[in-house]
Amino acid sequence: MAKTKKPKVKIVFLGGVDGIGMNCTAFEYANDIIIVDCGVAFPEDDMLGVDLVIPDFSYLENNAEKVRALLITHGHEDHIGAVPFFLQKFPNIPVFATRLTLGIIDGKISEHGIRNARLHEVHAGDVLNLGVFQTEFINVNHSMPDACAICIQTPCGRILHTGDFKVDYTPVGERPIDLARIAELGRKGIRLLLCDSTNAERPGYTPSESSLAVSFDRIFNNETRRIVIATFSSNVHRVQQIINASEKFGRKVAITGRSMQNFFNAAVKLGYLDVPEDIMIDLTDVKKYPPERVTVVTTGSQGEPMSALYRMAFGEHNQLALSSNDLVVLSSSAIPGNEKLITKIINELFKRGTDVITYSNYDVHVSGHACREELKLMQALTQPEFFMPVHGEYKHLIAHAELANEMGVPECNIVIPENGRVVEMSKRSLKPAGNVEAGAVMVDGSGIGEVNGAVLRERKRLSEDGVIIVSAGVDTEYMCISIPPEVATRGFIYEKENEELIGKIAESAHNSLMRNFAKGIDNINVLRTRLRDDIAEYARRRTKHRPMIVVMLNEVRL
Amino acid sequence: MAKTKKPKVKIVFLGGVDGIGMNCTAFEYANDIIIVDCGVAFPEDDMLGVDLVIPDFSYLENNAEKVRALLITHGHEDHIGAVPFFLQKFPNIPVFATRLTLGIIDGKISEHGIRNARLHEVHAGDVLNLGVFQTEFINVNHSMPDACAICIQTPCGRILHTGDFKVDYTPVGERPIDLARIAELGRKGIRLLLCDSTNAERPGYTPSESSLAVSFDRIFNNETRRIVIATFSSNVHRVQQIINASEKFGRKVAITGRSMQNFFNAAVKLGYLDVPEDIMIDLTDVKKYPPERVTVVTTGSQGEPMSALYRMAFGEHNQLALSSNDLVVLSSSAIPGNEKLITKIINELFKRGTDVITYSNYDVHVSGHACREELKLMQALTQPEFFMPVHGEYKHLIAHAELANEMGVPECNIVIPENGRVVEMSKRSLKPAGNVEAGAVMVDGSGIGEVNGAVLRERKRLSEDGVIIVSAGVDTEYMCISIPPEVATRGFIYEKENEELIGKIAESAHNSLMRNFAKGIDNINVLRTRLRDDIAEYARRRTKHRPMIVVMLNEVRL
Repeated sequence: MAKTKKPKVKIVFLGGVDGIGMNCTAFEYANDIIIVDCGVAFPEDDMLGVDLVIPDFSYLENNAEKVRALLITHGHEDHIGAVPFFLQKFPNIPVFATRLTLGIIDGKISEHGIRNARLHEVHAGDVLNLGVFQTEFINVNHSMPDACAICIQTPCGRILHTGDFKVDYTPVGERPIDLARIAELGRKGIRLLLCDSTNAERPGYTPSESSLAVSFDRIFNNETRRIVIATFSSNVHRVQQIINASEKFGRKVAITGRSMQNFFNAAVKLGYLDVPEDIMIDLTDVKKYPPERVTVVTTGSQGEPMSALYRMAFGEHNQLALSSNDLVVLSSSAIPGNEKLITKIINELFKRGTDVITYSNYDVHVSGHACREELKLMQALTQPEFFMPVHGEYKHLIAHAELANEMGVPECNIVIPENGRVVEMSKRSLKPAGNVEAGAVMVDGSGIGEVNGAVLRERKRLSEDGVIIVSAGVDTEYMCISIPPEVATRGFIYEKENEELIGKIAESAHNSLMRNFAKGIDNINVLRTRLRDDIAEYARRRTKHRPMIVVMLNEVRL
Repeated sequence: MAKTKKPKVKIVFLGGVDGIGMNCTAFEYANDIIIVDCGVAFPEDDMLGVDLVIPDFSYLENNAEKVRALLITHGHEDHIGAVPFFLQKFPNIPVFATRLTLGIIDGKISEHGIRNARLHEVHAGDVLNLGVFQTEFINVNHSMPDACAICIQTPCGRILHTGDFKVDYTPVGERPIDLARIAELGRKGIRLLLCDSTNAERPGYTPSESSLAVSFDRIFNNETRRIVIATFSSNVHRVQQIINASEKFGRKVAITGRSMQNFFNAAVKLGYLDVPEDIMIDLTDVKKYPPERVTVVTTGSQGEPMSALYRMAFGEHNQLALSSNDLVVLSSSAIPGNEKLITKIINELFKRGTDVITYSNYDVHVSGHACREELKLMQALTQPEFFMPVHGEYKHLIAHAELANEMGVPECNIVIPENGRVVEMSKRSLKPAGNVEAGAVMVDGSGIGEVNGAVLRERKRLSEDGVIIVSAGVDTEYMCISIPPEVATRGFIYEKENEELIGKIAESAHNSLMRNFAKGIDNINVLRTRLRDDIAEYARRRTKHRPMIVVMLNEVRL
């Protein structure tokens, strides 16, 4: 009997595994590829001047004829942010997502000037045939409405990708996660589970979104100050609860912050917010009401320096300044890296006499991700043969892998994914199978991928020590200086207070040229290199800095 | 009866109040000033290229003839880091500190080439007469040995400055805080208390340093891997406990990291560490021992990119690489702002199969600062008439002020200090009384204060968008270009892949000059300005960036 090659599904991680952001996973079998999510990451601290980071689509471009569809689990930036960049390369590929998610994508691609995209609305329960794959969207709970898990039926078995999820039995304005369908699929047999790992280190359960109603009640009750609540603009459920509390306690609601306003408008238009008549007021009208009659919902819960809350705290907001007549509520937790920015705002608010409530002293926030007991529930219902922890820092993936192992998935059936890693799944095994070109593509201004390591290194050095520019003209025939050296600096020292030093740099440039002429050097390239080295050495000796040196040396005949 | 002016003590905050770092407080009466602490702050994220931030000494320089002494509470950088810069301006002022603190200062000023400083060792209980002031050092507990509070007897009453402290009834290698003396001073009457506010938001008590012995026992017991423990190099007590545990479980101890080695050497030399014979080994000898026989003590607990732990995690350490044969313990908490750096190391360690224990999953760290119940004890013992919370973010000062108020200090007797703020204390009142020149002086390379806001703004822009440099020569008499425009860029785009764009910039420079000649412009300054604006506009249009533009335009006659 001839040995035939076993059919295999390839799972290719183009981003999003190690560290939050840039989720993008391709599932491939023979001539078909479907992609789940297409997010951005925010630049690391050392990516100076970089606006966004998107996945490297090279693998998909090299297999463009196989790509059948892009499926989106939910509308957070780390899952949809790179869709416009994807559609620039793959304009004809259909995008499938639920209603609100699609609304957000639509707004986003319009801003990028993309027309005629093939956007298709799906509902939880919908089944799509995409090449060899059959996919099903399954309702889950998360920190924004309309989030889904996606089940992918492949020739090698069933794959369940949870997307970002939590288990909320009493969600706000939506149904609880469809555990029944997940259990049913589990009974039928799930070959591979890919599961959200964000809270894999946190014990217990994530509280229900609706548990916050009690906190808001307590905060609003008898409060005579204006209440200003900052939260994530995509957290439509949270905004709903703030509106509910405001209505109950007789407050009008105003919105500030561009992204908050955009999300609010989209959510109202698409029917995701239940807004009582006449409750909303324009921000410009806030002053017409006594403080105890107004709630302001704002962006800035992460301390973002240009956000509405920041501007209100620092007195830079056109319409609103905060004082002891305001109570600020940060209905959010700190995304790692933002702690200092948030503290800066809190300090400033206290200086103005504004009281501040945060999640560290009050139950004003719940996570959108499943904690350990919920992850165990997911394992118990799905009983997967193979497991891959996704979405989280590496340490979270490890913690999640250990949890799955404790719940019965053998260690040899667990693969920790990495960006660019290909994982092959047959009916018998799940194994790493090499790597593809993948990684962070830095998007900066209007260009994609124009910024690379070399430019970032220059920016880093410019940011620390600045640049010295020296221009001069030489006549290499007569071996003399035809235009005397002129010096400019940027980011180096304060020129006005250091004219003597600038003069000395010009003098040392002059001396460098003369010294080399005296040595018989008449090659302008050699003169240029030596001039640069001499200035660098002079600057280092005088200031202990290492600014970049740019020499503009021209041949100018006398 | 003629009305005489009431005698007043001025308290001048030169730094260190809002946000941690740069502690420096002057106490002034008539012709005498004494200073408590003289620390540095670490640069904020937007202080590009700045190495350190020190207090502005202008006020002291303007009153130089009054300055009697500098007293130091303990040897952390935020209390001693600016001593070398102080002594450069006040070489003859005596510095008083306890033994270990003085040892650290001595090493620090030597590195700055300062000789003949008047360093005086004091012991807890010592009383000094400094002009009109009588001061007494009082033993307290903190996260390094030899920390003191300072009591200052003034003509307007007694002031107690706690310095940084915690209440540790079972400290390691030192006596508990001298509560008896503090209580005695309280009974005699304390007019003003200045008290550490770092943990003013944290309920309960800070656990004793010695409570960690149990944790270390549990970690070391039956552990067969090499144990690598990162902690603050100044935490000599912690290092002592690690050595104790290593001895108990038969491990040798090696030290790595420059500052850890320096502190270890100083602590041994000055008798602050009790090191069993033969337990210490050189790092180069670690490989000669089986993993279960070695402990490595290292720097890097804050994720610092050049630290020994970082280099070990990323395989860049000369002597040691970590693997699954190592267990890393971060015996520390995250200083706000360092969370992402720490996570980066932890992820990398997990990738190498190295297990990591941190304070978030194990009791491996205790704070060096008093929590709320300890702060209440301090209030109860001292019963101050007046109160100023010091050392902490503004939000901590507020929380501490509220605590003091609850404990009986009337609100009108509490002043929240600010940097540069003068507070006047008479026998009857404590009030803000104007401001003096104070604030952050940025130290950069070898220069002090050379970097100002203008230079930082240039660095910020350079770091985001880089710089375009255009040089050219013109003959304004014949109104023509005598040296064609030449373009160089740094930190802008990757030149090698964008030669066409560089060419276009040169072309647009050429066009700008020709266009303006055609308009009859023959003033080189006008040509220069217009050239700069045209290039800026061209770059913005082509790339959506706003690089800095430097034009080097020379008159070169044909």
